[in-house]
Amino acid sequence: MRPDQLDRSDPEGAIAATAARVSNWGRWGDDDVLGTMNFLTDTKRRDAAGLVRTGRSYSLSQSFDMDGPQKGWRRRTNPVHTMLDTGVDAAAGVQGFPHGIGGADDVIAMPLQCSTQWDGLGHIFDHGRAWNGRPAEQVVTSLGDRVTGIETVADLVAGRGVLLDVGRALGEDGELPDGFAITEEHLEATIAAQGPTTAVGRGDIVLVRTGQLTRARREGWGDYAGGPAPGMSFTTAEWLQATEIAAIATDTWGFEVRPNEFDHAFQPLHQIAIPHIGLFIGEMWDLDALADACAADGHYDFFLTASPLRITGAVGAPVNPVAVR
Amino acid sequence: MRPDQLDRSDPEGAIAATAARVSNWGRWGDDDVLGTMNFLTDTKRRDAAGLVRTGRSYSLSQSFDMDGPQKGWRRRTNPVHTMLDTGVDAAAGVQGFPHGIGGADDVIAMPLQCSTQWDGLGHIFDHGRAWNGRPAEQVVTSLGDRVTGIETVADLVAGRGVLLDVGRALGEDGELPDGFAITEEHLEATIAAQGPTTAVGRGDIVLVRTGQLTRARREGWGDYAGGPAPGMSFTTAEWLQATEIAAIATDTWGFEVRPNEFDHAFQPLHQIAIPHIGLFIGEMWDLDALADACAADGHYDFFLTASPLRITGAVGAPVNPVAVR
Amino acid sequence: MRPDQLDRSDPEGAIAATAARVSNWGRWGDDDVLGTMNFLTDTKRRDAAGLVRTGRSYSLSQSFDMDGPQKGWRRRTNPVHTMLDTGVDAAAGVQGFPHGIGGADDVIAMPLQCSTQWDGLGHIFDHGRAWNGRPAEQVVTSLGDRVTGIETVADLVAGRGVLLDVGRALGEDGELPDGFAITEEHLEATIAAQGPTTAVGRGDIVLVRTGQLTRARREGWGDYAGGPAPGMSFTTAEWLQATEIAAIATDTWGFEVRPNEFDHAFQPLHQIAIPHIGLFIGEMWDLDALADACAADGHYDFFLTASPLRITGAVGAPVNPVAVR
Amino acid sequence: MRPDQLDRSDPEGAIAATAARVSNWGRWGDDDVLGTMNFLTDTKRRDAAGLVRTGRSYSLSQSFDMDGPQKGWRRRTNPVHTMLDTGVDAAAGVQGFPHGIGGADDVIAMPLQCSTQWDGLGHIFDHGRAWNGRPAEQVVTSLGDRVTGIETVADLVAGRGVLLDVGRALGEDGELPDGFAITEEHLEATIAAQGPTTAVGRGDIVLVRTGQLTRARREGWGDYAGGPAPGMSFTTAEWLQATEIAAIATDTWGFEVRPNEFDHAFQPLHQIAIPHIGLFIGEMWDLDALADACAADGHYDFFLTASPLRITGAVGAPVNPVAVR
Repeated sequence: MRPDQLDRSDPEGAIAATAARVSNWGRWGDDDVLGTMNFLTDTKRRDAAGLVRTGRSYSLSQSFDMDGPQKGWRRRTNPVHTMLDTGVDAAAGVQGFPHGIGGADDVIAMPLQCSTQWDGLGHIFDHGRAWNGRPAEQVVTSLGDRVTGIETVADLVAGRGVLLDVGRALGEDGELPDGFAITEEHLEATIAAQGPTTAVGRGDIVLVRTGQLTRARREGWGDYAGGPAPGMSFTTAEWLQATEIAAIATDTWGFEVRPNEFDHAFQPLHQIAIPHIGLFIGEMWDLDALADACAADGHYDFFLTASPLRITGAVGAPVNPVAVR
Repeated sequence: MRPDQLDRSDPEGAIAATAARVSNWGRWGDDDVLGTMNFLTDTKRRDAAGLVRTGRSYSLSQSFDMDGPQKGWRRRTNPVHTMLDTGVDAAAGVQGFPHGIGGADDVIAMPLQCSTQWDGLGHIFDHGRAWNGRPAEQVVTSLGDRVTGIETVADLVAGRGVLLDVGRALGEDGELPDGFAITEEHLEATIAAQGPTTAVGRGDIVLVRTGQLTRARREGWGDYAGGPAPGMSFTTAEWLQATEIAAIATDTWGFEVRPNEFDHAFQPLHQIAIPHIGLFIGEMWDLDALADACAADGHYDFFLTASPLRITGAVGAPVNPVAVR
Repeated sequence: MRPDQLDRSDPEGAIAATAARVSNWGRWGDDDVLGTMNFLTDTKRRDAAGLVRTGRSYSLSQSFDMDGPQKGWRRRTNPVHTMLDTGVDAAAGVQGFPHGIGGADDVIAMPLQCSTQWDGLGHIFDHGRAWNGRPAEQVVTSLGDRVTGIETVADLVAGRGVLLDVGRALGEDGELPDGFAITEEHLEATIAAQGPTTAVGRGDIVLVRTGQLTRARREGWGDYAGGPAPGMSFTTAEWLQATEIAAIATDTWGFEVRPNEFDHAFQPLHQIAIPHIGLFIGEMWDLDALADACAADGHYDFFLTASPLRITGAVGAPVNPVAVR
Repeated sequence: MRPDQLDRSDPEGAIAATAARVSNWGRWGDDDVLGTMNFLTDTKRRDAAGLVRTGRSYSLSQSFDMDGPQKGWRRRTNPVHTMLDTGVDAAAGVQGFPHGIGGADDVIAMPLQCSTQWDGLGHIFDHGRAWNGRPAEQVVTSLGDRVTGIETVADLVAGRGVLLDVGRALGEDGELPDGFAITEEHLEATIAAQGPTTAVGRGDIVLVRTGQLTRARREGWGDYAGGPAPGMSFTTAEWLQATEIAAIATDTWGFEVRPNEFDHAFQPLHQIAIPHIGLFIGEMWDLDALADACAADGHYDFFLTASPLRITGAVGAPVNPVAVR
């Protein structure tokens, strides 16, 4: 489907029709809690280790601090990091420890999706249904996600990463404009342009660089957290499912194009990808240094470890993804 | 030095003498912020990728939740995870989103050292001096660690991991008793017992399993967070420095043996290892599943990614370490 | 009803029967959000100001700090107070402010019911019904209490306070034992013993001292937060409603006697008092200094201001109640 | 001193000279922790109770929620209030409590000065000196204010409140423009205009309404938290000390006029008022409803209870001030 075939007035209809086509419900049994992470097998992970050529590593995490983009939407703030003890206290001799030892210690209060993170399978529902068709109210209560909490994949998220630098392949100066909807055609064009290391298939973790973060870094955050952005078109749902990728991440706040491709809608591709495909979505990743390295030598795949912080019952979780090339 | 050669009445003297012998100050220049992480080069990391044989991955993280061991010492609580939105709300139709989409979202408040974590180089001081000889008050203020914040190593902590399962090699039923001081002799005996895959050298990330976590899991936390524990002897300081390892982690709260090996002391080995050696110390790691796998096939080294959450200025940071064998 | 008339095996029946007798639903109209606070009129408040004789004031608040009684039940921790800036930093000159000014600033993370607090009308439900018969799911969502948030009474909670020092009147050494169920008979005996200033009536804020806090202060917290305690008998429901008091508070964690007076139950009097009577309940108040003063001069009523912190949508709120005699 | 007599280029000199004139150091002994709260005696409080005429009460607190004015300056965010349990969960039957009881519970994470609050005596230092001349580093460490924590006045802050509605007396439409420096002359003119109930003297709690909050409520927060504002002139330092008031509060973020009255300065009046005078300063109070009532009947004094939340060691604290007229 092409974006111009969408009926902009009927997101609900488009979602229902698309969900019917791409649903993975039941594919891995009624008890499944892993969704597309099932595709990332030990064999895939072993093969991915073979992609390491120089050993150079790249963190794909943005910073967690008060200089982040959050403005308070739905109580999402930037992380507040405070000290329990400091070097200044230690130097002033006010800590009361023996034999000259001094210490510093710290705490943090933050939304789990304030910076670089994974959406877990309990993050989004479609008409009250969570991943695999479960009733949302039986999955995520005030106590957290009792079924598909992010801890279910804490061991697993390491494998082959593939960068699709759509910004560099199709944008001007390496950046797609806000509102640019990345279609399957754009993805395939990027894959073709980048060459053979970019083939995308079962179990891969796909990283899509739009260049919006590059722009935000240069021009200021503006409305990075929730405003207009380049991102995946709703019409990529089939591609996301058919490729059998394990996960996908972008350098934007919300993964999909914004404004969304309907007159009145909110993140309709999430509504397909998470509850129906069982797909793990990463957001706010920093792909710039990695992208420069890939562009320099033409190798776009690498060993990627991106296991989320093991917060029991989390519906999303911060992560420091590390690519080793 | 053997533990029985320590003057139990003089920790300050022992610390000073040991610091003089093992100091790495200036080794990597005055501006260094990486300490022993300098040993973990791209080449080392590339070679480590070659250790992956089956592709099976193991998270070495304990859970982050209210069932953890913290009891409030120095305001260290267990993490408090709360929901901003839930599946119950989504199912009840009270969220106000369009086209049937519903969502769950969450926040956390936690000490950075409440569960599986790295100590950063700004965590401990010796007589007001931080790593590389810097005045502590110029390093860690109420704004955080301005020099050696954990973000400095956010890209780097991936390489060869080596498990020293001292509990299994020397303990009864795989566990060392509380108060057991692991000496260089014990480490070497474990290396010998485990065989050739266990050689420890420059750039390695060494994981020492005592079995205390296994016991806590069976018997309840008790005083896991700060009470008696097996751990590294103060006398291993030379070994820690001479081996040129990049980092070390244990399955205990505090890395070193407790009670400490002096009459009145508090974590004296930290006072050497962090500010003088520049060594990264991991605590509260869960090594049990990995240890079972290593024991089963006799391979004790693996590819380990353990990059800390990228919290700007943090003196410690939570991490989900993942070993791939 | 006397406690020995309760059928210990049937809390649900007892609750239903009692609710039918004491319900205030509809008493102040369908839109009411104030419950018994309606009884505390301006006239009552004006008259209460006349009770001030010496001008001596007493805070009835326990401390908010890590030395409190919370042990993590349902994620209720003690408050974690951390500094954003300190005097040590200011003295060390690391703050970067001009003309010699320095500052300290702080943050807190805490459950709203961790220490001295009011239960709001959205705190407890009976079979899915909140105060005035509203469906609970329409009142308190993940966004907070949208109807009866504590802000609705932020202006109002000032009036005549009356201390019923049941511990001193009926206990040994001023303390009731844990498990002691305070009945209407005990309340009336205390009123009689204390004399004419103790009359209880419409619009009053009644403070019931059991002495448990005195004991905890002497012997350590133990299970103060949720364990056995003296407190109000389930059978006082009629008294609580018939007296037309505006609010009631105790020096215990949970207001009512614990263990509760049924074989298997959890806070059954709450289930009557809050959703059916619309009564505001204060917990963890420190009544000791006030009680000493009352005992010394025989005056048991005073002007009490106890307006909760104005947290929008809170179902409970911390408060520093101040009695002026 | 008049504002036009200030040397705008020399805040440090002006501060030193003013401090020398108004210092209260030693006035109440070397151990004093109460500062000007010493003026608020029991007798003053008793007399203040006599001001109650109708019994109508007014909360002077702004809301504590995410709709507040904070933008993250020095990590000051708006309060983040989240639910531990909700009515939606209770109605869905997922809470697991017996006999039909359901509950809601909540937590908060917030800076102590995010909304209506008192500055404590440990909030501001002058050249490393805190109130009464104490070295700042001995007063406020990372553990909080060990000497003058806000708990020292938890019992005390109840007495005569006097509203000086400068906005109404001197402004247009009841509001002073941003940058308007309120001088002693303006205060006296307001007192004269308001009439005999407005006399200001020893032990009073003075509330100065500028009207900025009224404007922010109408036009949006803009830079309410730290931007230009009407407020007290630096030159009022003598008046603040000579009147022997117990405390003062305004409807603005920062009490004093902003921009400050020097070329390069930051809150110079704070540097006098808190460490030298020992004065308690309230900020972000909502005085509008009270002001309307005072204007309506010409009575500008009332009984005011404004005891801060009892957070041990806090250098500032949230409060719900309640005026009863």
